[in-house]
Amino acid sequence: MLYSKMFIPTLKEAPADADIVSAKLMIRAGMIRKLASGLYEYLPLGVKVLKKVENIVREELNAAGGQEVIMPLMLPKELWEETGRWNVYGKELFRLKDRKNAEFCLGPTHEEAITDLARREIRSYRQLPVMFHQFTQKFRDEIRPRFGVMRAREFLMSDGYSFHTDEADLEKYYTVIFEAYKRICQRCGFDFRAVEADSGAIGGSFSHEFMVLADTGEEEIACCTCGYGANSQKVACLPIENPAQTPLKLEEINTPHMKTAAEVANFLKVSQKNLIKTIIYVADGVPVAALVSGNHEINELKLQKLLGADNISLANEETVREVTGADVGFAGPVGLKGAKIIADLSVLSISNAAAGANKTDFHLKNLNYGRDYKADQAADIRKAQNGDICPVCKKEKLNFCRGIEIGHTFKLGTKYSNPMKAAYLNAEGKEILSPMGCYGIGVSRILAAIIEQSSDENGIVWTDNVAPFEVEIIPINYAEGKTKQAVDEIYSTLTAGGLDVLIDDRDERAGVKFKDADLIGIPYRITVGEKGLAQGVVEFKRRKDPKEATKLLKPAAAIEEILKIYRRGI
Amino acid sequence: MLYSKMFIPTLKEAPADADIVSAKLMIRAGMIRKLASGLYEYLPLGVKVLKKVENIVREELNAAGGQEVIMPLMLPKELWEETGRWNVYGKELFRLKDRKNAEFCLGPTHEEAITDLARREIRSYRQLPVMFHQFTQKFRDEIRPRFGVMRAREFLMSDGYSFHTDEADLEKYYTVIFEAYKRICQRCGFDFRAVEADSGAIGGSFSHEFMVLADTGEEEIACCTCGYGANSQKVACLPIENPAQTPLKLEEINTPHMKTAAEVANFLKVSQKNLIKTIIYVADGVPVAALVSGNHEINELKLQKLLGADNISLANEETVREVTGADVGFAGPVGLKGAKIIADLSVLSISNAAAGANKTDFHLKNLNYGRDYKADQAADIRKAQNGDICPVCKKEKLNFCRGIEIGHTFKLGTKYSNPMKAAYLNAEGKEILSPMGCYGIGVSRILAAIIEQSSDENGIVWTDNVAPFEVEIIPINYAEGKTKQAVDEIYSTLTAGGLDVLIDDRDERAGVKFKDADLIGIPYRITVGEKGLAQGVVEFKRRKDPKEATKLLKPAAAIEEILKIYRRGI
Repeated sequence: MLYSKMFIPTLKEAPADADIVSAKLMIRAGMIRKLASGLYEYLPLGVKVLKKVENIVREELNAAGGQEVIMPLMLPKELWEETGRWNVYGKELFRLKDRKNAEFCLGPTHEEAITDLARREIRSYRQLPVMFHQFTQKFRDEIRPRFGVMRAREFLMSDGYSFHTDEADLEKYYTVIFEAYKRICQRCGFDFRAVEADSGAIGGSFSHEFMVLADTGEEEIACCTCGYGANSQKVACLPIENPAQTPLKLEEINTPHMKTAAEVANFLKVSQKNLIKTIIYVADGVPVAALVSGNHEINELKLQKLLGADNISLANEETVREVTGADVGFAGPVGLKGAKIIADLSVLSISNAAAGANKTDFHLKNLNYGRDYKADQAADIRKAQNGDICPVCKKEKLNFCRGIEIGHTFKLGTKYSNPMKAAYLNAEGKEILSPMGCYGIGVSRILAAIIEQSSDENGIVWTDNVAPFEVEIIPINYAEGKTKQAVDEIYSTLTAGGLDVLIDDRDERAGVKFKDADLIGIPYRITVGEKGLAQGVVEFKRRKDPKEATKLLKPAAAIEEILKIYRRGI
Repeated sequence: MLYSKMFIPTLKEAPADADIVSAKLMIRAGMIRKLASGLYEYLPLGVKVLKKVENIVREELNAAGGQEVIMPLMLPKELWEETGRWNVYGKELFRLKDRKNAEFCLGPTHEEAITDLARREIRSYRQLPVMFHQFTQKFRDEIRPRFGVMRAREFLMSDGYSFHTDEADLEKYYTVIFEAYKRICQRCGFDFRAVEADSGAIGGSFSHEFMVLADTGEEEIACCTCGYGANSQKVACLPIENPAQTPLKLEEINTPHMKTAAEVANFLKVSQKNLIKTIIYVADGVPVAALVSGNHEINELKLQKLLGADNISLANEETVREVTGADVGFAGPVGLKGAKIIADLSVLSISNAAAGANKTDFHLKNLNYGRDYKADQAADIRKAQNGDICPVCKKEKLNFCRGIEIGHTFKLGTKYSNPMKAAYLNAEGKEILSPMGCYGIGVSRILAAIIEQSSDENGIVWTDNVAPFEVEIIPINYAEGKTKQAVDEIYSTLTAGGLDVLIDDRDERAGVKFKDADLIGIPYRITVGEKGLAQGVVEFKRRKDPKEATKLLKPAAAIEEILKIYRRGI
């Protein structure tokens, strides 16, 4: 492809509203433009990368037995009412009516539609397992669309849905997809972790997020060198055993206006570890007191799951006063009225602890479990922290880092097949609900994630398999006869080798061409000039190497170096 | 691909609401399913064909210099207001609001969006010409979705938009796209005509429709052996010279209750050709009388264009009475009040014509132009008919047939660049509006059109380039060792030759396999059985040939026959 024949409108500056590196670079490199909030146009270079990523995903999913389908983007309300999600999805769902006033949504995900297809088409166990997948635009009316294509309102997603005879078969297939997703991440060149995750609005019993490590990631993940990884919300915390001490006498101490754990600990001269924080929640209308040590935080998701509550929120002042008999800030485990007490596992072993006295401006000292207070239940309800011991190997310390979620796999069980009655007949002619899995990977988001992980101050640094072109040839002066001849020869040889090659044939200064080449980030660059040719050489440089790493090679050697890399593949 | 690994749910019967052959066969062959009125699901076989057609279109448009983009499907109201089409499009446009109450439509076409992109990105004549194209779902809220994917509410379309420095450059590029569209039709295997068409809601000065000939087509087209072809609405009619006769005396004759041309002609003993039909219209609120001979019909589109009217409709009874002074059915050109008279070119030369007398229950005889009546204007306002003389070669007779419109190319001029101010700077630094072309081809509709043109009582007969698989191998019993070995060898050889091959490995009777093979319509079939193999042969059959044409060939010969066809290409 000749650069002059391709529409690549590069920019020196990114627009002011481009808020992360990938958004800035995708716009500057002429890959995308913004039409409106959360709505992006893909220009030719963007389309090329999108198609390459789509093809990697397609190849891996087809190899995993996937059946490619294309479902309508407009989905009838009736289907979404069957699962109750028409209401659950709230404002995130784009809704519209047709000329006859029938209601539709623009699919943000397709569990209902695919389960409907399956219940119509799958009748016998002989048709199972089956996995349907598709590449279609998805729609989500984000409160705050941001981060370029990363959190857009319209985006390309690969979503797959599998149906099984039983949980064991789902379990087996889940690992097949899990491996396919790992290969997709590897082929995209990602430094990534597949971590245990919460299932959120999609539901189901078990799920993994595929996280690309990047400081700009929206998610926090915890990893261990033993291989364990999980969304930080999901990490199990081992109980911390506090050293036992001789119980001292319980004391009530006046602590006027001291409300934060730090203030109280400082005043009482105890470490924050020895403080018991008591937080009053309301779970489905009922007050609950949650206890954690002063250096920990409550994980509300864990607390909610433990209680099996649909809703949980901090209690308001009035409720706090009713339960503790004191102002906010002086709650403690002794003498609470009408609130269940849930203690974190690391709390009970604290000897001679400090805590609120349930009396305004007073705290207690030398509190000991059993003697002074009791809990209705002790459980893991705290947030994991950097440096916590890994709950799996129970040896190493967890390392926290940030990640971009690019994929999510779910064991759904019968969450959708049950309300929608997606059943099959087993060998005995009995009707059985089909357990399901579902698998989503953000194709357009992958583009941004690659750039978040792989760019420098000059532009994008594409990984080998997803680059829009594998090689860029820069003739210093393409009009010059010998240069043109050499460039065209290199081009033909590389193209014949199956590579996608860009020639910057523009009548521009070499500086402009190098700047654009760095910006659009093609992995391999061959520069051809009259001077070099006189000595039989061209300049060869990998985008990711520094300028100094430029090598002078014979054209054939440069070609061979590149072909060798791509022949190897991943 | 093994048949057992692909989800191909064939059906013996089509559902009752499948209303044309292609819809029936696409459903029966397991290519599509209907989710809701005008909303279809593509199953794996359907996706395969769709992708093959999409790739043919992509290759031809890229070869014609097209730049592939992907525009958002949700388009802001503001853009559509700039061109006035937010209102013009009426109920066909799906409209929705986001959570902030901003309004959007689901794009039925993308002139506004692409013109907006162009005006932001194109600044200089050096960037022109440029053609952007995309493959995206389009949305139209059809009054009556029907004919399967042919007239669906959501469908895959290839739409392209070109921008030029001047009309001459647009003219030049239009022929490039015209040829690309012809090649697309050829590669799909269509018997088609590219005909002059009306520009309709898209607008512009000039357009062509690409019509696939099929009796089930919704459009009527006129063709001449000289090469001319046009949408029947668009065909120019040459004036018919009627033989001059000695003018006779004007007579008024009582014709009680006779209203149709046939009744009147019969009673007055004149041929319908000698009758002048007078139809009263209201054009933008003003009455107009249109005259055609009794054997012709008014072409309202021609009349409307001639008058430059925004709206035209038949006058109501009251208006007819005001203008003619008589009941409906007795209008004539003599003594009309307050209505402009437009006569068709073939009317004025009728000697001794008959016509309504503008008096209830009376007609006139021996009417002659000039002596008895005058017209304000004579023009071509009639519908062309089968057997009319071709307006281009002026020799041959036109042949009328029916067609399915699968593509449409438009010279738009500045219809969109003017209101949206899509301008560039010319070499002198002057701002010039960019003339545009636009080009649409219905990818999903092509699938249906191929089947309308190519099927038989047993199923689909795919043309070579768009078939989901090029070859189907049917082992009589795949479990049998020698059969499996022979099948696998044929499969590897064909696959190595670049072909897409399906093996029906199912444990089904041969009859079931043949039935399904005929239904899904793979162009070449090789049947492998123990008996044949004992004699060193397999059965080779082209789908389009009758059963008797089955040949017994050595495996290598069968392979060679197929490879030869595909090597040749189109």
